[in-house]
Amino acid sequence: MAVQTVAATPDQTDVPAFGPAAALSCRECGTRFPLSPVFACQECFGPLEVAYDLPLGDPEGLRKKIEAGPTSIWRYAPLLPVPADVTDKPNLHPGWTKLVKADNLARELGITGGLHVKDDSGNPTHSFKDRVVAIALEAARTFGLTTLSCSSTGNLAGAVGAAAARAGFRSCVFIPHDLEQGKVVMAAVYGGELVGIEGSYDDVNRFCSELIGDPVGEGWGFVNVNLRPYYGEGSKTLAYEICEQLGWRIPDNLVIPIASGSQLTKIDKGLQELIKLGLVEDKPYKIYGAQAEGCSPVSAAYKAGHDVVRPVKPDTIAKSLAIGNPADGPYVLDITRRTGGAVEDVDDEQIVDAIKLLARTEGIFAETAGGVTVGVLKKLIETGQLDPAAETVVLNTGDGLKTLDAVAPTTGPTAIIRPTLDAFREAGLA
Amino acid sequence: MAVQTVAATPDQTDVPAFGPAAALSCRECGTRFPLSPVFACQECFGPLEVAYDLPLGDPEGLRKKIEAGPTSIWRYAPLLPVPADVTDKPNLHPGWTKLVKADNLARELGITGGLHVKDDSGNPTHSFKDRVVAIALEAARTFGLTTLSCSSTGNLAGAVGAAAARAGFRSCVFIPHDLEQGKVVMAAVYGGELVGIEGSYDDVNRFCSELIGDPVGEGWGFVNVNLRPYYGEGSKTLAYEICEQLGWRIPDNLVIPIASGSQLTKIDKGLQELIKLGLVEDKPYKIYGAQAEGCSPVSAAYKAGHDVVRPVKPDTIAKSLAIGNPADGPYVLDITRRTGGAVEDVDDEQIVDAIKLLARTEGIFAETAGGVTVGVLKKLIETGQLDPAAETVVLNTGDGLKTLDAVAPTTGPTAIIRPTLDAFREAGLA
Repeated sequence: MAVQTVAATPDQTDVPAFGPAAALSCRECGTRFPLSPVFACQECFGPLEVAYDLPLGDPEGLRKKIEAGPTSIWRYAPLLPVPADVTDKPNLHPGWTKLVKADNLARELGITGGLHVKDDSGNPTHSFKDRVVAIALEAARTFGLTTLSCSSTGNLAGAVGAAAARAGFRSCVFIPHDLEQGKVVMAAVYGGELVGIEGSYDDVNRFCSELIGDPVGEGWGFVNVNLRPYYGEGSKTLAYEICEQLGWRIPDNLVIPIASGSQLTKIDKGLQELIKLGLVEDKPYKIYGAQAEGCSPVSAAYKAGHDVVRPVKPDTIAKSLAIGNPADGPYVLDITRRTGGAVEDVDDEQIVDAIKLLARTEGIFAETAGGVTVGVLKKLIETGQLDPAAETVVLNTGDGLKTLDAVAPTTGPTAIIRPTLDAFREAGLA
Repeated sequence: MAVQTVAATPDQTDVPAFGPAAALSCRECGTRFPLSPVFACQECFGPLEVAYDLPLGDPEGLRKKIEAGPTSIWRYAPLLPVPADVTDKPNLHPGWTKLVKADNLARELGITGGLHVKDDSGNPTHSFKDRVVAIALEAARTFGLTTLSCSSTGNLAGAVGAAAARAGFRSCVFIPHDLEQGKVVMAAVYGGELVGIEGSYDDVNRFCSELIGDPVGEGWGFVNVNLRPYYGEGSKTLAYEICEQLGWRIPDNLVIPIASGSQLTKIDKGLQELIKLGLVEDKPYKIYGAQAEGCSPVSAAYKAGHDVVRPVKPDTIAKSLAIGNPADGPYVLDITRRTGGAVEDVDDEQIVDAIKLLARTEGIFAETAGGVTVGVLKKLIETGQLDPAAETVVLNTGDGLKTLDAVAPTTGPTAIIRPTLDAFREAGLA
């Protein structure tokens, strides 16, 4: 499909549809392609990513421009594949979520160098997916696509449905037919098409690939398939925000969840860009990857010293991270090793304990993925893999309200009493 | 209890513990009392509210100071009963939620004068309660109280639990013993005491009043009882944010939900303060109150032309608004009549339809209270009570994830199919 650009009208200056983005570039062979809705290299089938002509040369001016921008990811429009006027378009304006100084949690974990939680449950549909979908949506708009779509088992379905509703797109989201009712309601409430597929999540994915190749799928933007190069760039904004919120500084350690691994690799890309732009000092940092033991192919490869990732069949309560064959696995291994970090995993019980630990210490109710990162952080310290005297940022990428089942069996009232002071005293609460 | 102030240390300037707040003042007889944890006038038993020495005289300087402040309610610290250094204290930093330009919803409702949704689901625990609890928490800190408490059936329990966890307070929250599991989990996950009371919500409230009067309750701050004058002030920040986000302008119409009625009266108070401070132009505005038909004592009084509100027994899916004997009812009647607004109500079916309408048009998944305000807005236009050519702001004060049951029975997949293109076509989806 040919690249479509925003048409200039006589009383409008021509706004480049993809801002500073210059091309798609193959991560394996480096071949460049025009910006279009494709995701695989026509030379070597490697994954494509967005390459930029970054606004180098005036870091102070750029920093001021960013700081004067909107309180959303669009403050970083000069570094994203979106037009400069993206703020004026109908979208969910995600991002600029809180970086929470987590002194109570630090104390419990024995961290003395400072700890922050980047809490992405503050996004419009309460997960980091709003960031990536927002970039994919703008690409879909520019390419003239009219249906926004994805395969999903949860967070992404809600993010796509909501973004499409706001933007006036048709949406069509595919899910396994036997999801929990709560997730189905979240995916359906925005009024788009929601198709339950009789089969597993793998069957859903396979069917989506078929749809893209068929005339039926013409005009469709699958955010995590044919719009994936744009979609992935949304995760860079986590790196930008963390550094800006720390006062334009890279922390010593970052603990990041691994599903496909794309978020982790794009955060590294974002940090490298900030260094190149002169917005932060060039200093060493360590990137740590976090998985659930029940779906830990990258952690297993890391521990075995392998360069390739052997797919697994997921079995964990951390369903938003349950990708058995993570596309960015090898890149994650490379980044964690290169930066001196590590990849670690925790079991379901440790995940639940970590959700409760974060809630009890910082008042943040995380989804299971947040339990994975906090649990892994704890384990990294206990096993001497992470220096507690260094400054650490740990990510919470979703909301506990979406994974209530994880904590419900072990979370309830302290006591149930009659409404009298005597009963209150007898229960030992006075 | 005597007022305690923050002790000044040699290398600290003395920060007034309550900022610009000067006293508590009776809303009925005007008698003034020192700032302390009391809520009823000792002369006439009228409700107390916070009175201020506002920073008059330099609106431009004040506006600049606010605009340079944090992206939370603390940007308005100069107008709140909190110390100027409140941002540095451990709390949830709520507020500065999105004011969403709702062009799609406006089109469906026939509004031509502009429509915005103030979306408070973006708060840390996803309801406006984080605003009021944050102010009560700072008062509790100043008064040397050590346990944060409340009676609640939902949003408030989570907000108190989370705020106490972050601030290092003990918390003890009282709920009816037979709440839905989701709400119980939310209230319990932050690790404070959660006490189920064998009885109705009225029994819970009565018991809390007993506790305050008993030695057992010494050192306790019940955010919605003995800290209520401070707590209530948090709602003013909704008025401040709406006006600042509109470019320091009061909208023509505001549609606000009524539970106790406190939020509506404090928003009016906030608007009057902005006018007095010279931060916005003094212009007419109309305040509309929204209730659920199944708990509409204020709406009934408004329609009957009464000045007093006759209590009712609530029966509605909008449980967060289900207060049958709203304390601020008479004040709400006064404000809506004085400003030329109205009070209206919608039934449960209209509430559900309005939740879906807002989700479908703007990608915002509201709790039932948001269905009430959007449903009432629709009804106000249809009945000619609200001018569609005027600029309107409607509030969504909570999150759809907390009231899934309201929409679940009528929200689901468009189709369930086998993963083949033929099945997709047969289902009429192509």
